[in-house]
Amino acid sequence: MLKIPDHQVAGHQARDGKLGPLIDDSGRFYKPLQNDERGSREVAFYTCFSFNTEIPDRICRYFPLFHGTQPLEASDGSGLHAHLILEDLISTHVHPSVMDIKIGSRTWYPQASEDYIQNCLRKDKEATSLQLGFRISGLQAYESAESGFWKPDKKLVSSFDVEDVWSSLKRFVSSNPVSDVEPDSSLASVVYGGSDGILAQLLNLKAWFEDQTIFHFNSCSVLVMYEKKTAKEGISQAKVKLIDFAHVVDGQGVIDHNFLGGLCSLIKFISEILTQGTV
Amino acid sequence: MLKIPDHQVAGHQARDGKLGPLIDDSGRFYKPLQNDERGSREVAFYTCFSFNTEIPDRICRYFPLFHGTQPLEASDGSGLHAHLILEDLISTHVHPSVMDIKIGSRTWYPQASEDYIQNCLRKDKEATSLQLGFRISGLQAYESAESGFWKPDKKLVSSFDVEDVWSSLKRFVSSNPVSDVEPDSSLASVVYGGSDGILAQLLNLKAWFEDQTIFHFNSCSVLVMYEKKTAKEGISQAKVKLIDFAHVVDGQGVIDHNFLGGLCSLIKFISEILTQGTV
Repeated sequence: MLKIPDHQVAGHQARDGKLGPLIDDSGRFYKPLQNDERGSREVAFYTCFSFNTEIPDRICRYFPLFHGTQPLEASDGSGLHAHLILEDLISTHVHPSVMDIKIGSRTWYPQASEDYIQNCLRKDKEATSLQLGFRISGLQAYESAESGFWKPDKKLVSSFDVEDVWSSLKRFVSSNPVSDVEPDSSLASVVYGGSDGILAQLLNLKAWFEDQTIFHFNSCSVLVMYEKKTAKEGISQAKVKLIDFAHVVDGQGVIDHNFLGGLCSLIKFISEILTQGTV
Repeated sequence: MLKIPDHQVAGHQARDGKLGPLIDDSGRFYKPLQNDERGSREVAFYTCFSFNTEIPDRICRYFPLFHGTQPLEASDGSGLHAHLILEDLISTHVHPSVMDIKIGSRTWYPQASEDYIQNCLRKDKEATSLQLGFRISGLQAYESAESGFWKPDKKLVSSFDVEDVWSSLKRFVSSNPVSDVEPDSSLASVVYGGSDGILAQLLNLKAWFEDQTIFHFNSCSVLVMYEKKTAKEGISQAKVKLIDFAHVVDGQGVIDHNFLGGLCSLIKFISEILTQGTV
């Protein structure tokens, strides 16, 4: 039985009769293919990536598992529609804290149409992309059984400025209530720090991006996830995954300097929060 | 006695009655200040940089020494004009091989005017900046006493595509004549490689750019220099310097992800040439 995911924080959502992703009980995530070249690009990416023997195993772990495509009843009731069958990254979580961070100061690319370029350029300027090299596209952070999740709405997130990004990255790993002015960053050392924390994982990705010239990941996101309960017990299990490959193009022998620059900027933010320590 | 520099490869030149930089016999380079905010920004940069105690010594070596400003007779005969007094980076060279590489896939910045942005955007697309994260702005490579320098003209350099960039970076460290189709890269290991070769110096800069949030170096160049005679004797003395700070702005607590991304792309090119070895 397919159902609408509970913990999606960005992207098209299968609510109110709209077309969006679905999940099942076996840990799979069904993402409807976009009808235009975005759909074909995303299939092409997952296919190439799965068969490419140059991708080291230590890097494959940062990508969702891919199980092909399948026609399925679309969530908008429009009948059969091709879906990507992916790993449901959230399926093992109870109360996932999730942040979707779109990487790159530029979400467009030379091969795109002039209209698309100008539209992206405007959005990149309005959001923090141009300034920071990344923007937060959506997030939810579990607070407690009583207050549930802190999940600022899409419109608010899209208006985030640099200060909001700082405070959201801190709030994401804090234990004090959102009503407190200053997030306490109490879980930063467990979630962001440590030998396999978020920072370490981002640094692994960075090392790969300094070298790989296979793909350019335009408009792609880093998804950061952890479970507050286990983090409070000192066990991180935090995960970094790359998602959204509808604008991936051939690297043509050049590194993805746009993604790499943005990733380094995010790394600097996370490092700073770790250095500042708990408030 | 001031004179026109012999080995300038890019930028405004003081020839044919135009306004451009001058040098003296004591190793100083006099750069006329541009009258608009570019001039004031460049003075501001050199002043801030000179007095900033946060810049490590290992990084200061990559910047020209600054000796203040001074009104001087302009090279275009227009009378007294304010000049920056800088170190003449070439003064100790006999036959300098020099390459000017403008770093960043984007030479514009959010604070600039819409006209300026669209103009830069067009140029970045036409040149290799957008694709590679850098472009070659000018170069000369010493060949021999008989044939002198290989110095492709400005127009040719501005039309360089990715293949031209590859071959120029190889040709720059080759000993065989330009008439040979394949540059032999015979000096790559001495000039690009080694513990204080170009690659090592670029990696030092990269480490700083991963951390520094003081300046954003928009439209700034890396100047690479070496002397062929000593390189052929196995002694590199190759130097990397950053130049052109008319578009430097305050980093506002964020790393310069645009410069860093482009620098990493250049590093990858140089590393590849070293890996390929001599043809």
